[in-house]
Amino acid sequence: MKIRLLTALFVSVFIAGNTHAQSLTEVVEDFKPSSVNQAGREYPQVNSEGRVRVQVEAPDAKYVQLDIGGVKYDLKKDDNGLWTGESAQQDEGFHYYQLNIDGASVPDPGSLYFYGAGRWGSGIEIPAGDQDFYAVKDVPHGQVREQIYFSKTTNGMRRCFIYTPPGYGKDASKRYPVLYLQHGGGENETGWSNQGHANLIMDNLIAEGKAVPFIIVMDNGAWTMPRGERPAAGNWPPKGWADGFMNTLLNDIIPMVDANYLTIADPEHRAMAGLSMGGMQTRVITLAHPEKFSYVGMFSGGSITTDDLKDSPDFSKNIKLVFVSYGSREIENGRTGFGGDPKANTEALKEAGMNTHFYVSPLTAHEWQSWRRGLHEFAPLIFKN
Amino acid sequence: MKIRLLTALFVSVFIAGNTHAQSLTEVVEDFKPSSVNQAGREYPQVNSEGRVRVQVEAPDAKYVQLDIGGVKYDLKKDDNGLWTGESAQQDEGFHYYQLNIDGASVPDPGSLYFYGAGRWGSGIEIPAGDQDFYAVKDVPHGQVREQIYFSKTTNGMRRCFIYTPPGYGKDASKRYPVLYLQHGGGENETGWSNQGHANLIMDNLIAEGKAVPFIIVMDNGAWTMPRGERPAAGNWPPKGWADGFMNTLLNDIIPMVDANYLTIADPEHRAMAGLSMGGMQTRVITLAHPEKFSYVGMFSGGSITTDDLKDSPDFSKNIKLVFVSYGSREIENGRTGFGGDPKANTEALKEAGMNTHFYVSPLTAHEWQSWRRGLHEFAPLIFKN
Repeated sequence: MKIRLLTALFVSVFIAGNTHAQSLTEVVEDFKPSSVNQAGREYPQVNSEGRVRVQVEAPDAKYVQLDIGGVKYDLKKDDNGLWTGESAQQDEGFHYYQLNIDGASVPDPGSLYFYGAGRWGSGIEIPAGDQDFYAVKDVPHGQVREQIYFSKTTNGMRRCFIYTPPGYGKDASKRYPVLYLQHGGGENETGWSNQGHANLIMDNLIAEGKAVPFIIVMDNGAWTMPRGERPAAGNWPPKGWADGFMNTLLNDIIPMVDANYLTIADPEHRAMAGLSMGGMQTRVITLAHPEKFSYVGMFSGGSITTDDLKDSPDFSKNIKLVFVSYGSREIENGRTGFGGDPKANTEALKEAGMNTHFYVSPLTAHEWQSWRRGLHEFAPLIFKN
Repeated sequence: MKIRLLTALFVSVFIAGNTHAQSLTEVVEDFKPSSVNQAGREYPQVNSEGRVRVQVEAPDAKYVQLDIGGVKYDLKKDDNGLWTGESAQQDEGFHYYQLNIDGASVPDPGSLYFYGAGRWGSGIEIPAGDQDFYAVKDVPHGQVREQIYFSKTTNGMRRCFIYTPPGYGKDASKRYPVLYLQHGGGENETGWSNQGHANLIMDNLIAEGKAVPFIIVMDNGAWTMPRGERPAAGNWPPKGWADGFMNTLLNDIIPMVDANYLTIADPEHRAMAGLSMGGMQTRVITLAHPEKFSYVGMFSGGSITTDDLKDSPDFSKNIKLVFVSYGSREIENGRTGFGGDPKANTEALKEAGMNTHFYVSPLTAHEWQSWRRGLHEFAPLIFKN
């Protein structure tokens, strides 16, 4: 009981201190329910400053915290057992978060759930100035299809999601290019449509005539080091780390898609892109097999160097575009991943004669708003001829 | 602080009492992770008796409970702050559940999440003797497609999920019948594929040659009474209650599907079925518009009476099959919903000359295993000629 009393005391003091701190910060009282709340739920909410306010009923809890962006914010309890509190300002776009109730990390029962950080958990949407590009509009819509298939590589059934553009299949003689689009570490095949809105981004770009219609295949590239193995320092990604997914992609996924969808099944009409870990997989796979692809996109996931070209002589011959993007806050913080300065690397590639494009997402970090914008910039540049 | 101490004391006593009660009940120690856990999670688990064991880290919690089947089970805390405990035996099949942490009802961070009971929350799967009929097998698989469309009735964008059978679209001249399949109250358009496995049930039936391939449209039939209105006693569903979804179905959904999918767009090749509230909607809509449908299925959602036929003279002329099913526990408990004894009603319909089928799911209640089995029995009976 001693520990309980001490904890309670500590929490009380801590909450009191926090309340004082908050009274010094003006919070703009224009909170509205988040656009990714469960149907009919009033909380979580977001205000015009980008603060997140959560509320949860936990009458017997000692403390409740909002855990977002790596910071835990203490909530305050009212007489009805409702805990309420808000975060500091968050960047525009989508963020994962969770609640901490007396030490238990749990999803917020008010939000929709998304797979990231290795779990299904809460997500929140801070309205962005440019959110129109992924809004649901009354334009022709493509479909996102759950595709179950057998993989020889993994000797089991797998699942992916496949975006087919508006009008797909109406004319069976019309065939489409394909983009293989990968999620990041701790995410899965649901990310690019659920929180990335890849389908809505494409529907809107196609409606505006800014991108040609193409198929997008979103599969699960999850990968962990074999138990006990660690890469040598400075040697990340370790040699062979992407082989499992590469084999699955080349031997199972691409043949399955070409056999079952209206694809143009040649390298000129095949692209690969990914975010973070998916960008690193894109780099490794397209350098190893430049005969399979023509367009390469890496969103917050490294870059291609002129040294890479020496090891993969066909890469510069075959690849028509290398697209590299980052969030501006990643660049500010020097968190641009592996293989050196992505901007300098991409400029060096251009000087070496390749067609490259480097994009920086304004005021976003290693998060989905950077990657939505990355896809939105990348898609209009590919399959144009 | 007094209240806190008293609560802590009460909880301690209560847990001690519960421990004693559990030591009197033998629990078979063959628990395995649930098949609907998040990737890599060890908990929740299920044993061969159908007990559910959950475990959650909540070092500072006063009490944690497992809330399943309308009963709350107290968990016990170990020295590491891990709370563990198990439920009584549960029926075979899928159940919604949640955790209660110091009064907060939250999803279990170990399970996948499903929409039911008006929330996205935890689900658990008790292995069923007949689970093979909805297993993921190496057979040709159809697709489940997310379809976004504009509705004039609701003046906004809507979403549904559409199952297309294996091979759909390979031959654009091959067209398919359509089943409109509705979820229950507190559920939405995701239920029939996520927890109902409608797609897997169909893939397996088609692979075995037991059902003809058809399209399934799963839309959102959510409906609540207008604020402040209550139906007169004994008058449920109230007159007009299904009009909103009926208008959306007839004026938006069916035309959208017939315009965009390879349907046979006539009443002979159109069925409607639903579970619970969706069964009641099926009843109201097919009685009001028997010129639109040929097959009717109601799973734990009422039945059709000979009185209904008097009010809808074309119903018995047009409808080729009325299928009614319930879980055996619903029948045992007399919880067979609205409009009298479903078995007697269905037998009376047969005597009146209609083709009917009455099915009872063994040892299941008003839950998904009853409805999976309902679809599995219904699907082979429709569109046979």
